[in-house]
Amino acid sequence: MNNEQQKAVILVSGGLDSATTLAMARDQGYDCYALSFDYGQRHSSELLAASRIAKFLGATLHKQVSLDMRAIGGSALTDDSVDVPVAPMESAPTEGIPVTYVPARNTIFLSYALAWAEVLEAQHIFIGVNAVDYSGYPDCRPEYISAFQSMANLATRAGVEGHPITIHTPLIELSKAEIIRLGLSHGVDFSMTVSCYDADSEGRACGVCDSCRLRAEGFRTARINDPTRYR
Amino acid sequence: MNNEQQKAVILVSGGLDSATTLAMARDQGYDCYALSFDYGQRHSSELLAASRIAKFLGATLHKQVSLDMRAIGGSALTDDSVDVPVAPMESAPTEGIPVTYVPARNTIFLSYALAWAEVLEAQHIFIGVNAVDYSGYPDCRPEYISAFQSMANLATRAGVEGHPITIHTPLIELSKAEIIRLGLSHGVDFSMTVSCYDADSEGRACGVCDSCRLRAEGFRTARINDPTRYR
Repeated sequence: MNNEQQKAVILVSGGLDSATTLAMARDQGYDCYALSFDYGQRHSSELLAASRIAKFLGATLHKQVSLDMRAIGGSALTDDSVDVPVAPMESAPTEGIPVTYVPARNTIFLSYALAWAEVLEAQHIFIGVNAVDYSGYPDCRPEYISAFQSMANLATRAGVEGHPITIHTPLIELSKAEIIRLGLSHGVDFSMTVSCYDADSEGRACGVCDSCRLRAEGFRTARINDPTRYR
Repeated sequence: MNNEQQKAVILVSGGLDSATTLAMARDQGYDCYALSFDYGQRHSSELLAASRIAKFLGATLHKQVSLDMRAIGGSALTDDSVDVPVAPMESAPTEGIPVTYVPARNTIFLSYALAWAEVLEAQHIFIGVNAVDYSGYPDCRPEYISAFQSMANLATRAGVEGHPITIHTPLIELSKAEIIRLGLSHGVDFSMTVSCYDADSEGRACGVCDSCRLRAEGFRTARINDPTRYR
């Protein structure tokens, strides 16, 4: 398929997964519109990383939207009263759903992507969700993505007028090591990405949070030198 | 059914429909959490109205969330480069979908309601959408609401853990005149509500936009004195 003329909205967080997703969409020929959110996350250095990655990987436009997620609360990532856990995910409470889960986050992110896709008349949205390493997050599973896509095509002009939107999740079934190999093959510079839940203002990682553990383990398994900067 | 102990998130815009919806939820015994959005709408006097209505109708809490919708654009209600039409809806372009349609608006609103419902452990969301007078808006139709509910129950802890969320749309099949009669029967003071797409800072209506026409026609048909303040 030649996607030369097709626009796509790509959710870009500044992390490893979304950078790989953007590189893949670009290499498939999509005209890429990168979308990031400032949602009061503790690791705001991710947003600087998102800007650099969008530029480096040739996005046509990078839009950053401010979201008032702290007003809603309920997650260690946005609520100062909930500590970011340093123990592995297995020990997280509430039947396997980690406290770093942000309520309805991907639903809110995809809703904005959908709004922007409508304005751009784009029929493609890419999101780097992963059901393997993040199986505790309900909104990272294929059945959720499929339900979102069905809803989106009833919600929008595009759907009503016969131009359906597709939600692409190229990483959903891959391990972290597979994502790292794939990203490298598409030219991602992982030293630009920030995965840590608690990165400092320079984007240096803590090395102990769940996200740092998964990332480091991914590089080890992939037998690729880990360019992460730790503090 | 006794809903005495059940929490519900109610989307409250400051308009006539959402005020009626809130009054109905309250009278059904729900513990009501009102949610409003500041999304750069031109008619920001609606937000003041939403506050007064939430208080008057006994909401337990009224939360206002700021949304960066202007960054997305694409609607006469949020984009200064698109004029609010004063002609009836029938003349609007793009195959019946009016230019006052905000891309993915209800999807974004419901996503926030879903996030708050998760934090509150509420299993009920009320939204005053209407498929009769607003048939040009794809995200006001029953099939859209049903698809959102399905998605929501795959997206969230509540859904995953067997506590499904219900999206209530008590007005979806009613005419404006029926909504007005219903609202009155539930004690809504319509003089507090603002429907106009272009209300002034005092909440006074223009009298010529689609929303004003529908509202005035509703009061006429219901044979109820129209308390709307025009400028």
